[in-house]
Amino acid sequence: EIIDECRSTDRHPKFTKDFPSGIEYYQIEEVTNALAGADLLICGVSSFGVDWFAGKILPLVPENLPVLSVTKGLIDGGDGNLISYPEYWQRHSAPRKLCLNAIGGPCTSYELVARDPSVVTFCGDDTGVLQRLKEMMETAYYHISISTDVMGVESAVALKNAYALGVTVAVGLNEKYNGIDSKEHYNSQAAVFGQATLEMQKMLRLLAGSDGALYVGIGDLYVTTFSGRTRRLGVLLGRGLTLPEALKELEGITLESNVIIERLAVALRSMSKRGTVDIRDFPLMAALGEVFLDGREAYIPWEDFVE
Amino acid sequence: EIIDECRSTDRHPKFTKDFPSGIEYYQIEEVTNALAGADLLICGVSSFGVDWFAGKILPLVPENLPVLSVTKGLIDGGDGNLISYPEYWQRHSAPRKLCLNAIGGPCTSYELVARDPSVVTFCGDDTGVLQRLKEMMETAYYHISISTDVMGVESAVALKNAYALGVTVAVGLNEKYNGIDSKEHYNSQAAVFGQATLEMQKMLRLLAGSDGALYVGIGDLYVTTFSGRTRRLGVLLGRGLTLPEALKELEGITLESNVIIERLAVALRSMSKRGTVDIRDFPLMAALGEVFLDGREAYIPWEDFVE
Repeated sequence: EIIDECRSTDRHPKFTKDFPSGIEYYQIEEVTNALAGADLLICGVSSFGVDWFAGKILPLVPENLPVLSVTKGLIDGGDGNLISYPEYWQRHSAPRKLCLNAIGGPCTSYELVARDPSVVTFCGDDTGVLQRLKEMMETAYYHISISTDVMGVESAVALKNAYALGVTVAVGLNEKYNGIDSKEHYNSQAAVFGQATLEMQKMLRLLAGSDGALYVGIGDLYVTTFSGRTRRLGVLLGRGLTLPEALKELEGITLESNVIIERLAVALRSMSKRGTVDIRDFPLMAALGEVFLDGREAYIPWEDFVE
Repeated sequence: EIIDECRSTDRHPKFTKDFPSGIEYYQIEEVTNALAGADLLICGVSSFGVDWFAGKILPLVPENLPVLSVTKGLIDGGDGNLISYPEYWQRHSAPRKLCLNAIGGPCTSYELVARDPSVVTFCGDDTGVLQRLKEMMETAYYHISISTDVMGVESAVALKNAYALGVTVAVGLNEKYNGIDSKEHYNSQAAVFGQATLEMQKMLRLLAGSDGALYVGIGDLYVTTFSGRTRRLGVLLGRGLTLPEALKELEGITLESNVIIERLAVALRSMSKRGTVDIRDFPLMAALGEVFLDGREAYIPWEDFVE
């Protein structure tokens, strides 16, 4: 229905501006037509579409056609270790070697449509390809840095979906304490934000072996704290709703944060059991794990932050 | 007048709640009475009171009386290098050896009065003293970590006053572009926030030799972006006012951000001239320096962020 509406109106039903002229729209049954002669394939599935994309689309993609994905997340590589989606898709496509790249950084789609200045990072294995993609995509308001640290960038921007929920839990707790209609307070959320970046830095060293991509993730954490679905869920949990109650209130919404929190919390417990991490280094993620895996009421472990 | 009003009402004229009972108020002429038998001296001067505090108060302070300062900033130690206020005060008081400590971290006073959960860091040379101060001051909502990295913590929380102004310039630029009454946008400020934390990390290594205190500064950067005078100035500059015009609009307000931006920008230019830093590693601070030292209209150097 979305494609049908775009074809008749040149506008996505969720946007308030038309697409620029010259756009062609394809139904999924027409994907081979869409791919014929393409310079670039952009993948915008949610985490729930990652396997569909691997099974239905990637087999049709030529090895020399660059793929650029906006999906943010990490996934169990099959051995208990978390890997990036580009890595997951490459493993699925072996022995073919695809040209898989991804976008990280703070970039809310509505604001990009409004042509607000935005800074993102394109990551992939080949600097030449990344430079070509940058030249294809950059505009006066869309600024692109490039990085070959795929696991770093992908981990950083996946982590922010988990940690932004923690920050917004503090917003909801404050509303409960001061009154939902009170002026927004910032001390609590700032304390959680600082702790979130500290845990993200430690997680990056664990997952990617380097924390160089932290600053991409911090910008992304900031934007996610203030926009969208993650914030709505975190605030509801902070106000005292249980997870099932909050999810019921947000019915029909795709929640990337839930997916990544569960995966990270499971991975953290597993690493802690194996003795490869001290879970006390990650008190915020441990608390989020208790909420999402054990059904505990949302809370912030303040005293664990200062030990 | 403030002390007179506190004495007659038990309330600070700027607050909406009374002080707890048992408080005694002293005029500055009565400082020796106030110090007699004190367990702790808390210093809350602004940057503009640092020399006054050094000259008028510190000579009266016994060496064994802990001093705890909330003033955030850095100052030229006399040789072109920036030092912390505790270090500056100690040099001023030599050969006496005072017990100087300081507080960093995100903690807006109004929100602390509302008993919002807040997390701060006490820093000083002596862990035993810090532990004692923590026990004196901590409450169910005021959480305290301790650190002997005085220059790290003090640099981090001083840097945030400078960099928060950069983030709020992006807010003002966005208002100019999208209309002042439009819904707040976040892509631009998130990009500047991420860049700010990256530059803060590099600055900390330069100034303090370690970036371990970065996360205290990031929480502080976050809270300052959303509250108070720095935000008002940054937004006015971003909307296109010149620095003198913006300062006129904010007449009578104490602006810590201006003090620290000028000091950092001067120090950065001096280090760059000596060849000890590459100024291209600090494009945001370089741009702020052009606004505050050279009278340039406020801007964000987006392309320098992605080079």
